Amino acid sequence: MSAVLPSYVAGRWFAPDDGVPLLDASTGEEIVRVSSSGLDFAAMVDYARQIGGPAIRALTFHERAARLKALAKALSERAVKDAFYDLSFRTGATQRDSMVDIDGGIGTLFAYASKGTRELPDGKVVLDGPVEPLGKGGSFVGQHVFVSRPGVAVQINAFNFPVWGMLEKLAPAFLAGLPSIVKPASQTAYLTEAVVRQIIDFGLLPAGSLQLVSGSAGNLLDHLGPQDSVAFTGSAHTADILRQHPSVLHGGVRLGVEADSLNCSVLGTDVSVDDPEFELFVKGVVTEMTVKAGQKCTAIRRAIVPAAIADDVVAAISDRLAKVTVGKPDADGVRMGALASLAQRDEVRKAVEALRTSADIVFGDPDRVDVVGADAESGAFISPVLLRAHEGAREVHDVEPFGPVSTVISYETLDEAIDLAARGKGSLAGSVITHDPEVARTIVLGLTPWHGRILVLDRDDAGESTGHGSPLPMLVHGGPGRAGGGEELGGIRGVLHHMQRTAIQGSPDMVTAIGGRWTTGAQRREDGIHPFRKSLAELKIGDTISSDAREVTREDIATFADFTGDTFYAHTDPEAAAANPLFGGIVAHGYLVVSLAAGLFVEPHPGPVLANFGVDNLRFLTPVKAGDSIAVTLSVKQITPRLSADYGEVRWDAVVSNADGDPVATYDVLTLVAKTWPQDA
Amino acid sequence: MSAVLPSYVAGRWFAPDDGVPLLDASTGEEIVRVSSSGLDFAAMVDYARQIGGPAIRALTFHERAARLKALAKALSERAVKDAFYDLSFRTGATQRDSMVDIDGGIGTLFAYASKGTRELPDGKVVLDGPVEPLGKGGSFVGQHVFVSRPGVAVQINAFNFPVWGMLEKLAPAFLAGLPSIVKPASQTAYLTEAVVRQIIDFGLLPAGSLQLVSGSAGNLLDHLGPQDSVAFTGSAHTADILRQHPSVLHGGVRLGVEADSLNCSVLGTDVSVDDPEFELFVKGVVTEMTVKAGQKCTAIRRAIVPAAIADDVVAAISDRLAKVTVGKPDADGVRMGALASLAQRDEVRKAVEALRTSADIVFGDPDRVDVVGADAESGAFISPVLLRAHEGAREVHDVEPFGPVSTVISYETLDEAIDLAARGKGSLAGSVITHDPEVARTIVLGLTPWHGRILVLDRDDAGESTGHGSPLPMLVHGGPGRAGGGEELGGIRGVLHHMQRTAIQGSPDMVTAIGGRWTTGAQRREDGIHPFRKSLAELKIGDTISSDAREVTREDIATFADFTGDTFYAHTDPEAAAANPLFGGIVAHGYLVVSLAAGLFVEPHPGPVLANFGVDNLRFLTPVKAGDSIAVTLSVKQITPRLSADYGEVRWDAVVSNADGDPVATYDVLTLVAKTWPQDA
Repeated sequence: MSAVLPSYVAGRWFAPDDGVPLLDASTGEEIVRVSSSGLDFAAMVDYARQIGGPAIRALTFHERAARLKALAKALSERAVKDAFYDLSFRTGATQRDSMVDIDGGIGTLFAYASKGTRELPDGKVVLDGPVEPLGKGGSFVGQHVFVSRPGVAVQINAFNFPVWGMLEKLAPAFLAGLPSIVKPASQTAYLTEAVVRQIIDFGLLPAGSLQLVSGSAGNLLDHLGPQDSVAFTGSAHTADILRQHPSVLHGGVRLGVEADSLNCSVLGTDVSVDDPEFELFVKGVVTEMTVKAGQKCTAIRRAIVPAAIADDVVAAISDRLAKVTVGKPDADGVRMGALASLAQRDEVRKAVEALRTSADIVFGDPDRVDVVGADAESGAFISPVLLRAHEGAREVHDVEPFGPVSTVISYETLDEAIDLAARGKGSLAGSVITHDPEVARTIVLGLTPWHGRILVLDRDDAGESTGHGSPLPMLVHGGPGRAGGGEELGGIRGVLHHMQRTAIQGSPDMVTAIGGRWTTGAQRREDGIHPFRKSLAELKIGDTISSDAREVTREDIATFADFTGDTFYAHTDPEAAAANPLFGGIVAHGYLVVSLAAGLFVEPHPGPVLANFGVDNLRFLTPVKAGDSIAVTLSVKQITPRLSADYGEVRWDAVVSNADGDPVATYDVLTLVAKTWPQDA
Repeated sequence: MSAVLPSYVAGRWFAPDDGVPLLDASTGEEIVRVSSSGLDFAAMVDYARQIGGPAIRALTFHERAARLKALAKALSERAVKDAFYDLSFRTGATQRDSMVDIDGGIGTLFAYASKGTRELPDGKVVLDGPVEPLGKGGSFVGQHVFVSRPGVAVQINAFNFPVWGMLEKLAPAFLAGLPSIVKPASQTAYLTEAVVRQIIDFGLLPAGSLQLVSGSAGNLLDHLGPQDSVAFTGSAHTADILRQHPSVLHGGVRLGVEADSLNCSVLGTDVSVDDPEFELFVKGVVTEMTVKAGQKCTAIRRAIVPAAIADDVVAAISDRLAKVTVGKPDADGVRMGALASLAQRDEVRKAVEALRTSADIVFGDPDRVDVVGADAESGAFISPVLLRAHEGAREVHDVEPFGPVSTVISYETLDEAIDLAARGKGSLAGSVITHDPEVARTIVLGLTPWHGRILVLDRDDAGESTGHGSPLPMLVHGGPGRAGGGEELGGIRGVLHHMQRTAIQGSPDMVTAIGGRWTTGAQRREDGIHPFRKSLAELKIGDTISSDAREVTREDIATFADFTGDTFYAHTDPEAAAANPLFGGIVAHGYLVVSLAAGLFVEPHPGPVLANFGVDNLRFLTPVKAGDSIAVTLSVKQITPRLSADYGEVRWDAVVSNADGDPVATYDVLTLVAKTWPQDA
């Protein structure tokens, strides 16, 4: 009898005495048994809330990102990964399939580490959008913020991506400050367990960041409350059960669902059999049918093609499918492995039967397949099956065969193609294969309300395209309607989904204190030391330099025009400038104004300010005429140390005003500032 | 017998023969009867989907915003508004209460009209975030977009704000391209009906944009699908029923809930009885108790105060409450009107009874009140009631008296205050009254995960503060947990909630064609005509000017330093510049680079380009050293005509490169361009 797969509960590994056997997908051998019997789910939730959450939230976003990066690196070690690949073969996955799962998962960690560093502040509060003035006097303003929730992220995953499925949920939750309790689908939980064990052993994440439920979720959800969330990937049936759980219905638990959907790929009307797009379409369908033996929630179930070339499409897909070798996933030459279990094969056969009420099989036999390197009966093997839908077929839009099965559906007009796609009632991923931007625009905008992601594929992007079925960490994953209505990934979007958005109202000083970014109207501090002489360690939000005034003369404008070549008439031709509806006379160049402003605020000697690397949101508000004088006020708005450098970024609020006190130009100046500056210390 | 209140169904008014009588809140007189019996809900949904939705979506965002503005103006007409006010008195609302509802509602239309024009493109697709590179070669990129859903927005509103409640939901839905079916709470539906009738009569919104259900929602939800949404404001009980509706559980209908919550106001530990903040706190509690007779989902139910001054707070609130005159809402001197109905009064009395198990009444008697201008028994009048919680009281965090009732709870430490606030299990609005930024920061960040909006009130913002209980169109409204987990308003956020976010992947050309904004890597078009000579009508996305190159000499840098005064050592001192870790020698000023670039791309003669009003996202990527030569490429990125002006905004993509082809600086140049330019025509 095999061992029982343990769970990781409140800091220790725990396994009950017995469980349900899990079988090798290709050989039928028992690998391990699984059960969550005897698990103390209340203790798990407590541990996550009391130990894991506070430890994660003690770190800044950048510190959390650094942990994810270290973890990704550790998991990338050859020996570590090889062990995962070995286990992955047992799930029925080929080397290529495993790469999507294992390297795809690790890549997601890397991506979040990078996004977390580049796109989040080095703090604990995310500012959302600009400050909203709420009163005319400027003493009352609003600022939306995102903050961490003191809760637990429960992740209930599908069997098809035991590694990626966990990591793509863990990374954003961790960045958001939430500890995770992971419950993989039992069928392939041994691979998830191996990865979790490695992560725990590495010790790179704070204790309590990650716990594992091997087996059923038991009464885990009963212990959740309004600060907790459940992210579910799997069947619509299970999603329905979760939606009706009292903790979700009445307890305020946030539930995100990513369910299988009847994704479509649409071939444009512009494509003929000789175009490269024809081949791209055919290849895409075959890839999506065979990768993971079609057990992908993003796989193409419906190939929607112009009626005029439907026969050609069917022939070309069939030709390619004929070359797909099915067999033991680690055997030589095998392109498609086994389904995850014999039960899954039964499900797929049933689905094909249902489809056959309004579609004909044009390639493959669900009951027969040649298998390399394994026994066709004890392993969960099945042939790729291509169907062709009868006119007006309905089942094809409702029945999802979770295996290497796809149906060709033909259309006459673009409107009809869009209508057919919409009959899927909401999908995770769609694709449109066309080289005509107008065709692309029409189909894509028609499909968009029904999709979470749409790939437009043609000869131009094919070389770099990641394909129809690949969710990417920087793009949202999830879809409306049948696809569950959830949204994951999408870079920082996926992090924010775990956080609470709140509108803060108050005086500029209060909003500055809470959000950590200087707000117009808040106190400016001038202590006689030029802020460019202060290192990152010494600078404080609100540190300010108010410059002297400088007159902008007619000669300055003329000189600048000559020097730069910017002889636009509003700067050079009094008569023409007078006719300009916005100026009514000669005005200074905007670039002259900001150049002079820099001359007014700069501290010329070597110091902690290393460089000006950019300017944001520059707006010219009042024209500067010859003879006007300008002065600039520059205040520290935001300070972002870089963890891996000896300098950081300082964002300065710049306001250039004229002698009347009217703002002439407002902008943010971005500088790099040394963390310390011994010369001044 | 009174008339039956009609519904507006598929373009016509319809009323059944009989219905439930609705009574004047203060007099008990029958006003009208209400029933939705016989309504064809399927026809309403069809009409909205087939007629209303397509008509709205034929308009651009700016055109929709213009309709909202026209509507807001029409509703603001004195005579129109007066009729609403007259009806509003019958709901028990005073003049002040009605202003919040009626003018507040119209103000929300104005706010959305303005935000829609300023913050949305003049098109039909909203781009969300920057382009995401998906391949190293630049041929495959991602862009998130928001698009309209071809569905219906069903709005189920509470009785307390019959006008604002409808308009705050209608405005964002309309901007998002969705037709609305409004179902007000029956109790005050006659006021909503009056406003809907005016809106229909004005004819400013396309037919089918707005329909009305007077009476129950019947089987309306049965007809909804994955592109439809239901926005509900009301009780947790009804929210639970909606969450379990099959269309929501299985049909993919989006449900947003904004439920009543036990909002708190926390007085900071820094405040003594003599501070202005003490008075602000007391005044805030009294205002929230008495406006709308406390029938506000955002009202303060829990006043959380330092134990040391709890007695003073109770005394001060009681003093103020003693001066509140209760009576017929339009009678002279009346500060607080009636509850919406006698049934509501029974509910409030029941809730007070429940609270009394662990709190003492310290002001008012729920069974006795002096009433001005009306009969205390036939009208739904009730006295303000202040309670004081026993130590460890639980009911106060769970029982919501939807009337002029509040409970004072005392705390010792800030952590305890935060913990008490959190026991409400999620609220719409909280407030913190303190003048100490550190106290504010601690309490606010502790409260934030539990709140949709938090007001920080002190002497600095009190003059402009809109108060604890006022949702504002630019700030999100909604809260986690008990508050329902929904989110409305928040400016454009509330619009986007109605739309579908989708990740589009493709070549830069395809992403440009679909999103309507030029994407790096997409085709640039140069036709020999300088694009500055083209009017808005002639310009096309991708129109480009590629400049000649210009050498940047050591003299240029010196001249610029002298001229502007920007003598930063990296531009002037070879030795010091060599020591700079980023430059390693003299470099040109960033402002010099962009100034010279302008000289390279500008077309000096009068033409359709009227002004450069700003620059966005300027980044200096490669230092320019003396002797380097630079050239600039400028392409039309986005074109936004202004509906109400004879010019529009053109955003240009600018790339300055050096002789090696490395990008030196990238930025967006913002210009105003005349819609037509006869001289060139």
